[in-house]
Amino acid sequence: MKINDNFEKLPENYLFAEVARRLAEYRRNHPDAEVIRMDIGDVTRPLPEAAIKAMHEAVDEMASSATFHGYGPEQGYSFLRDAIAQWDYADRGIAIKADEIFISDGAKSDLGNLGDIYSDDSVVAVADPGYPVYVDTAVMSGRGGILENGRWSKIVYLDCNEGNGFRPLPPCRHADVVILCSPNNPTGVAYSREELKRWVDYARKEKALIIFDSAYEAYEYGSEFPRSIYEIEGAEEVAIEVRSYSKTAGFTGMRCGYTVVPRKVSGFDGNGNSIELRKLWNRRQSTKFNGASYIVQRGAAALYTPEGMRELRATIEYYLENARLIRDTLIGLGYTVFGGEYSPYVWVKARTGESSWDMFTHLLENKHISCTPGIGFGESGDGYIRLTGFNTRENTLKAMKRFSEL
Amino acid sequence: MKINDNFEKLPENYLFAEVARRLAEYRRNHPDAEVIRMDIGDVTRPLPEAAIKAMHEAVDEMASSATFHGYGPEQGYSFLRDAIAQWDYADRGIAIKADEIFISDGAKSDLGNLGDIYSDDSVVAVADPGYPVYVDTAVMSGRGGILENGRWSKIVYLDCNEGNGFRPLPPCRHADVVILCSPNNPTGVAYSREELKRWVDYARKEKALIIFDSAYEAYEYGSEFPRSIYEIEGAEEVAIEVRSYSKTAGFTGMRCGYTVVPRKVSGFDGNGNSIELRKLWNRRQSTKFNGASYIVQRGAAALYTPEGMRELRATIEYYLENARLIRDTLIGLGYTVFGGEYSPYVWVKARTGESSWDMFTHLLENKHISCTPGIGFGESGDGYIRLTGFNTRENTLKAMKRFSEL
Repeated sequence: MKINDNFEKLPENYLFAEVARRLAEYRRNHPDAEVIRMDIGDVTRPLPEAAIKAMHEAVDEMASSATFHGYGPEQGYSFLRDAIAQWDYADRGIAIKADEIFISDGAKSDLGNLGDIYSDDSVVAVADPGYPVYVDTAVMSGRGGILENGRWSKIVYLDCNEGNGFRPLPPCRHADVVILCSPNNPTGVAYSREELKRWVDYARKEKALIIFDSAYEAYEYGSEFPRSIYEIEGAEEVAIEVRSYSKTAGFTGMRCGYTVVPRKVSGFDGNGNSIELRKLWNRRQSTKFNGASYIVQRGAAALYTPEGMRELRATIEYYLENARLIRDTLIGLGYTVFGGEYSPYVWVKARTGESSWDMFTHLLENKHISCTPGIGFGESGDGYIRLTGFNTRENTLKAMKRFSEL
Repeated sequence: MKINDNFEKLPENYLFAEVARRLAEYRRNHPDAEVIRMDIGDVTRPLPEAAIKAMHEAVDEMASSATFHGYGPEQGYSFLRDAIAQWDYADRGIAIKADEIFISDGAKSDLGNLGDIYSDDSVVAVADPGYPVYVDTAVMSGRGGILENGRWSKIVYLDCNEGNGFRPLPPCRHADVVILCSPNNPTGVAYSREELKRWVDYARKEKALIIFDSAYEAYEYGSEFPRSIYEIEGAEEVAIEVRSYSKTAGFTGMRCGYTVVPRKVSGFDGNGNSIELRKLWNRRQSTKFNGASYIVQRGAAALYTPEGMRELRATIEYYLENARLIRDTLIGLGYTVFGGEYSPYVWVKARTGESSWDMFTHLLENKHISCTPGIGFGESGDGYIRLTGFNTRENTLKAMKRFSEL
């Protein structure tokens, strides 16, 4: 049996696994060091009480024949799709129908699996630095080409740097699929309405698809930044939006997210015919997926109750306050810092021209703080690290104290 | 953006969706008809109390910072992988290590996603009739070729018929990937040890991979049939085994299953080098999947307790008794019947040379019983229907009474 050769092209280690490995090694050699983890983007706050209550009820339903739930719809239950359509869209003036919303076991799965519906020779454009899953999944499907100097020959890289404020605008080159994340992981910066409009215009002109990863949109609450790509006129014709309950409601271990594929978004087939992508995604999900867990969907739906929304907002405020503490401390210490205002991520430039991994080692050894090296998110990320606000307040304050003692 | 053209090749409707559509139409036109559903393979019994208790505890853990669980390992938690290695394998004399076991959100996802790790030009062999997901996912990845007279040109069909007892043996033709399901869906028949040995020998000779779908193995409890492919000598070098808690523990709505990829199973790359498939699957899952829900994994682990095992066995006995009732009734009425002994499925041959869909319509209209037309599982399934034991005893008895009144 011949393997998919594309797998061999991928570097062996996934970024976070490599960070974990180095961290474990350090801990083994320094068992007394109290390392504060500011690397992984994992949440620490408990789930909202509304979700806990709903999930207990759902578990109880599974204990009795009369209320038992077997297979659910592959696309998700109406109770959740309707709540999303109402509260994440209609309530914000966006016309997305429930049947354009597909519930999944999380944004990571969807971001990887969406590649199934477009042609293997599609040219994919990604921000550099960006979430590694975008590039890795493209490479797995043969959309990478050859790796040279840390970059794949077939992928269009959208360079993010101080010059463009880490918000790259459309390139001159054509791309078939553009993956955007706002507020971005790892840089924490968000696109303005005008900037997103330029991306939508680009997609319309190039007949490209935008995959808009808005896993962190809840952190833009109260800001002027668009929280959905569909706030931009015309986006409903060119964009798929991927969302997650992981970073907003603490669902990283629960596994639930959703993807919006509006009816008007289409691609074209080999004969040039226009094909509704919603139908393809529906077919993909119906065939290779069997719906998200009923219990978890009940938990997610409870987030749309008044109590759920209140608790969710409190959690987000908590993490945002951590991010602001990090941002303010580092700015005070003379660092160049991005993000951390409407995002849980703070993107920090090394002061001494160090590489990302050097800074990682330096922080780990001298401050017992673990961070994520920017290079792990792409070549343009070198010389930067990502710190996250997903810790406890106590640990965040303790880590900032260690920074200040430099 | 150019779509994956392979999607257009697929017939629009997925089998069960088409059955549901026809059923809904019938009910709309005959609102008074009390239709008994013996079509879909969905369970009806509540979850074992051990799983309910474990899931309540897991939900409570998510309510407090001290016990909260964020991201889990993409491969699944050790508490579950260890339990599987012990109770599903070591306890039955099979040496499978915990790190060869990958927990997922269900067998359907894994059966679809496994296609990611082997070459797109792989020749796939499937039983006909068989679970439609095998063929549909192969076609989506370009492994179908052209559809002619209901069959895809690139796929090797293993004809199941009365002559071979619906247990096809290895063909003369080469295949790269052979997907076997035992006890089979939809026919309910299981391979003997000797027959599976011939498949393992074939795979070794042809350097093929066997994907062994043993979603229904628990129904073989107490039989002489092998419940794992790894009971066959040499299988650990050529076979991946996919399992599910759906039909054994009622987890259809919970979403949990697992896939075993032993270290010794390998494929070869474009240069003829041998590559460990376990590494590829690990990479696939780490990149495109973020683990199954913590709560659900806790529920699954509780099945391996003495109470869990006792309850699980009682549930399986319940469904098996339904299947036996169906089998015995239909045999008594002169039908030719397969399965229904160590399987929840009963495979029934039409008596009058009817087509599957004719028999479906006939049963629905005259008996108010819905079944799954055999043709939906492949061309060789025509002239047969599948009935399932996943109903309540009451409904099963009622349906058998209606049959007898013919």
